[in-house]
Amino acid sequence: MAPPIRIGIAGATGYAGRDLIRLIARHRHAGIVWLAHGPGEPDEPISTTFPELAGICDLTVLDTAVMLAKHKVDAAFLALPHRAAMAVAPGLLAQGARVIDFSADYRIRDVAVYEKWYDVQHTDRANLGQAVYGLCERYRGQIRKAKLLANPGCYPTSALLPLAPLLEAGVIRHEGIVIDSKSGASGAGRKAAAPLMFVEVNESFKAYGVFSHRHQPEIEQELSVAAGKPVEIVFTPHLLPLQRGILSTIYASLAPGKGADDIAAAYTAAYANEFFVRVKGLKATVEVKHVATTNFCDIGYFVSGGRVIVTSAIDNLVKGAAGQALQNFNIMFGFDEKEGLV
Amino acid sequence: MAPPIRIGIAGATGYAGRDLIRLIARHRHAGIVWLAHGPGEPDEPISTTFPELAGICDLTVLDTAVMLAKHKVDAAFLALPHRAAMAVAPGLLAQGARVIDFSADYRIRDVAVYEKWYDVQHTDRANLGQAVYGLCERYRGQIRKAKLLANPGCYPTSALLPLAPLLEAGVIRHEGIVIDSKSGASGAGRKAAAPLMFVEVNESFKAYGVFSHRHQPEIEQELSVAAGKPVEIVFTPHLLPLQRGILSTIYASLAPGKGADDIAAAYTAAYANEFFVRVKGLKATVEVKHVATTNFCDIGYFVSGGRVIVTSAIDNLVKGAAGQALQNFNIMFGFDEKEGLV
Amino acid sequence: MAPPIRIGIAGATGYAGRDLIRLIARHRHAGIVWLAHGPGEPDEPISTTFPELAGICDLTVLDTAVMLAKHKVDAAFLALPHRAAMAVAPGLLAQGARVIDFSADYRIRDVAVYEKWYDVQHTDRANLGQAVYGLCERYRGQIRKAKLLANPGCYPTSALLPLAPLLEAGVIRHEGIVIDSKSGASGAGRKAAAPLMFVEVNESFKAYGVFSHRHQPEIEQELSVAAGKPVEIVFTPHLLPLQRGILSTIYASLAPGKGADDIAAAYTAAYANEFFVRVKGLKATVEVKHVATTNFCDIGYFVSGGRVIVTSAIDNLVKGAAGQALQNFNIMFGFDEKEGLV
Amino acid sequence: MAPPIRIGIAGATGYAGRDLIRLIARHRHAGIVWLAHGPGEPDEPISTTFPELAGICDLTVLDTAVMLAKHKVDAAFLALPHRAAMAVAPGLLAQGARVIDFSADYRIRDVAVYEKWYDVQHTDRANLGQAVYGLCERYRGQIRKAKLLANPGCYPTSALLPLAPLLEAGVIRHEGIVIDSKSGASGAGRKAAAPLMFVEVNESFKAYGVFSHRHQPEIEQELSVAAGKPVEIVFTPHLLPLQRGILSTIYASLAPGKGADDIAAAYTAAYANEFFVRVKGLKATVEVKHVATTNFCDIGYFVSGGRVIVTSAIDNLVKGAAGQALQNFNIMFGFDEKEGLV
Repeated sequence: MAPPIRIGIAGATGYAGRDLIRLIARHRHAGIVWLAHGPGEPDEPISTTFPELAGICDLTVLDTAVMLAKHKVDAAFLALPHRAAMAVAPGLLAQGARVIDFSADYRIRDVAVYEKWYDVQHTDRANLGQAVYGLCERYRGQIRKAKLLANPGCYPTSALLPLAPLLEAGVIRHEGIVIDSKSGASGAGRKAAAPLMFVEVNESFKAYGVFSHRHQPEIEQELSVAAGKPVEIVFTPHLLPLQRGILSTIYASLAPGKGADDIAAAYTAAYANEFFVRVKGLKATVEVKHVATTNFCDIGYFVSGGRVIVTSAIDNLVKGAAGQALQNFNIMFGFDEKEGLV
Repeated sequence: MAPPIRIGIAGATGYAGRDLIRLIARHRHAGIVWLAHGPGEPDEPISTTFPELAGICDLTVLDTAVMLAKHKVDAAFLALPHRAAMAVAPGLLAQGARVIDFSADYRIRDVAVYEKWYDVQHTDRANLGQAVYGLCERYRGQIRKAKLLANPGCYPTSALLPLAPLLEAGVIRHEGIVIDSKSGASGAGRKAAAPLMFVEVNESFKAYGVFSHRHQPEIEQELSVAAGKPVEIVFTPHLLPLQRGILSTIYASLAPGKGADDIAAAYTAAYANEFFVRVKGLKATVEVKHVATTNFCDIGYFVSGGRVIVTSAIDNLVKGAAGQALQNFNIMFGFDEKEGLV
Repeated sequence: MAPPIRIGIAGATGYAGRDLIRLIARHRHAGIVWLAHGPGEPDEPISTTFPELAGICDLTVLDTAVMLAKHKVDAAFLALPHRAAMAVAPGLLAQGARVIDFSADYRIRDVAVYEKWYDVQHTDRANLGQAVYGLCERYRGQIRKAKLLANPGCYPTSALLPLAPLLEAGVIRHEGIVIDSKSGASGAGRKAAAPLMFVEVNESFKAYGVFSHRHQPEIEQELSVAAGKPVEIVFTPHLLPLQRGILSTIYASLAPGKGADDIAAAYTAAYANEFFVRVKGLKATVEVKHVATTNFCDIGYFVSGGRVIVTSAIDNLVKGAAGQALQNFNIMFGFDEKEGLV
Repeated sequence: MAPPIRIGIAGATGYAGRDLIRLIARHRHAGIVWLAHGPGEPDEPISTTFPELAGICDLTVLDTAVMLAKHKVDAAFLALPHRAAMAVAPGLLAQGARVIDFSADYRIRDVAVYEKWYDVQHTDRANLGQAVYGLCERYRGQIRKAKLLANPGCYPTSALLPLAPLLEAGVIRHEGIVIDSKSGASGAGRKAAAPLMFVEVNESFKAYGVFSHRHQPEIEQELSVAAGKPVEIVFTPHLLPLQRGILSTIYASLAPGKGADDIAAAYTAAYANEFFVRVKGLKATVEVKHVATTNFCDIGYFVSGGRVIVTSAIDNLVKGAAGQALQNFNIMFGFDEKEGLV
């Protein structure tokens, strides 16, 4: 057997980092060489931060810069906040590592859109052009060759997988799309914050980021590619009192002359051979529990009059982050896409 | 002080019944005379079914027919399933009791619509005509004189309070309204059912009743009254992993020439003097936890381009059932509307 | 009707403060005159901190010192951390207010024990001697006359109500008692802290403060009074993934010649006329949900061989804090003990 | 590579069955040949019962008897209730299959004890004598050769792993042991039952089966083996409002002359080379979240005066059922014990 692919993970002390470590522990052809944290965090074993990893991975997490100087890797996963990612990626690329970035830094093709929504200057325009948007089931060909992969956001994944094939096939109208999404609390990350305390989140539910969530331009960018014309959406995220999972309820209108059969056909064309997208069909229910801790995206849909409702479910930390990242890695390095993910 | 109003509660062994008993225990001018159950349930103290009520109310729950024969009451609350309610109401009305019904049996004015959606023959058409729809803040005048009051559904309450004033004032278009609602599990009632087991509901989330939930015609009926013309909506309920509360996220379009100020004005006109409707204003967040166990309805709204998003929150068992029923009782009998409800 | 008792609440921005405000809103003979916060907190309406209180109480919370200078009150509730309470109490007592303190500052009679366990110097020894330990059902006589009332801790309340009558009556041995307690997350207060984030507490459970929790000396002090000799216990608190409630599972041994009937007799003697203590009896189950949001303490017990297991349940924020405080207030001012608490 | 071991699973439609299917899907040397259900259940794909398995395993579940007649397997897992297991095991053994039974039918060596606690006649005394109790870390040698393996109960696993080494080494006294255990709701199985509805379990907590839970004799049997003399315990299970996990808080007394170092030494002797038992050490906290979905058992302990408190955490469905069963399978068939379990 070939020696395993050497992997580094920056931002290992977040929930997506932890899940990635767990998944890679099951991967037969990849081995973690280093784990790194952001500035100001202590150097300690990852199993101190996440006791659940004791025995699975006991590497000590050091500063990212230290790690870069010390070890060459074949692939680096950046589970860092935006800004931090684009500060690190160029050095890794220069060392010859292939980079899989979890942040938004390389997702938005129009740098002006990025800078407006993220309120920050883009500091690595040089590499932005070569970044591939890593929605596995849609960009597999480009992903194979990617040096710099922008791993999709969790909400965008839950919206794009159900919507893109319908827009591409012209089955639904590109106007008036409403995406009402609900996410578990791990989506907000691991930092202590008053509104994310147990007593505040448990037994409650709310919308947030109404008309202003940063995943909106990412969703619109990719839906516009699928539709072949500019698509504007209304997107409302909500906070669910549970650990992991996103369910999106999507409202659209049938295009003239189209019906449920056309939706079925569009999904068959897109996903009949996709292991990780399970189209449950017309009038099928999808539920967060069916996808939690897995890399699956489940899709069900309903049609009445000219209205279409599509519901999709993913695990925000797996198909919405670490799992899709590992799927992208598998594509990039020529492994079975399911490796480490079943 | 006048002797307390004598109250009977049929269907006392459900969650809405229990909450009603708790609320009435705080009411200075009402006293429970009897509690009744549906056919087949055992005769036992209510505190056997609900140990939380021990000391608060220890009456024995007997069969509804037995109770009707035995005790005359001034007011009867029917926390029974549809069909069972209209079997009992006529007898109570004939005895001179004023009836507050929690079921759908007297909510739908068009009997054909009722019979289609509830798949049952209406057995009390005689009284249907005199029933008053008990959305307190909109029908207070009629409620005062009502003999037979149809207490609104939980989802309808969460949709009508935010939408009716906007349609009535012509601030939003009456077409294309989407109501994406999320309810806690107590909304499904107290019966054992596999999909409502803890392990199935906890850590999960799903849509259900897509395009087919029975609260849709009720919402459409009342929105049509408000708009002065037929309104059709898309309504999607979801199941939240929490005890109590509904949050509705409502999507609409501004009417031509209208804006956020007109929304504010419509709400001020409707609710400035209403204790139980708290309009939080433009860009305000509402959360289930702020209304849980209370009779409040919180409303916040957002405007962008021509799109309007309104979010509302209520407790499904209080403002969505027992609390609104007691508020209706207070109106009907001339008490302070807040009595028992703060 | 007499004018209402004027009340001030210091530490209003914590969960116990909030619950107290809600309860007082239902009290017919008490009115809140001021709300105060600790040093460094912003001056803003209490309904900004707790939107659930909007309409119920919209007073602005100011600095404690400012409030003391401005308003005289008949009774002050101190929902402050230990240390902060004893800094404020003397001034209030000097103004003639009767003080009900939620902290540990006046609970421990032996100042050396206090100073050791709380690792701080006691700064108000002058008033310590006159403080009455406010376990309502056991010290009612003294509470009536108290100027300075030390409201019991939540865990101690859950342990003392079931254990004190048994020790006092000599039904159980005073040695070898184990108290295994489990509390909801609101017991930890409102401050943001990483281990109390939703994602960390939800779907988890742990012991904490093993052999070292500060409620141990308080429990031992009061059990020693009941037993008439020094009692040492083993006490282990745990963190439950729920909002409110404590269940304590208590292990003890029967005294020689004693049995289940003696337990029943001891409880009858202690609680037959107590509204807020519900002894469910031999082999009875108690559950957090039966007491949540109420001022009840439920008790059930089991006997096998010479072993006794007693389980008790309270709401940590009500009978374990704000509710018991209001019950104490009712005793002190001669009101019906249930006023505001049903 | 050798052809995979052929596996049959009876009782596949319960939570332990589902988890076992998931784990075997990751095992490189085992393949599921059949899935069977109990009498009266419908024949349908396992992914109809558990949509989360779609794509992972889509076998149709047939009646156990049908499966036995149809397919020979190398190993059969019986995730059936007690009684049902001993009705099926003999036939499988006769076919030459090695049987791993999840029920209590072959766990209790003294048939009289079994018949008393389970209130049923044992119908397979012939095979009882050859059954091996499958606590992997203690009986590995016998397990290797076992034809019939009795997989330990969930509570027993959480109690025996921390206690057995201490009793065996004589570090703690064998009298006065109290085991206060708390389990997530999946421990109660998948059948609809009113007390296990979401609304009844969520936001609540209770003890159950006090002095009467069937896992008590199983724990006592194995602790007696470890101690070399009869051990009686007090065992109290509780129901936690979460999906999966057991935390046991165990109270014991040090044997004369023993201390924390002796505990450490006993654990080192027992578990230094065990991958799935993580002894966190003196004053270490264990938490359900660190073991959920894993096959680990975490152990921490505290000593004060002569008292010892040990806390242990496992996932009731993994180390407490399906995971330990697969670990036993790996031992029996000579595979790496971690295969399929990391």
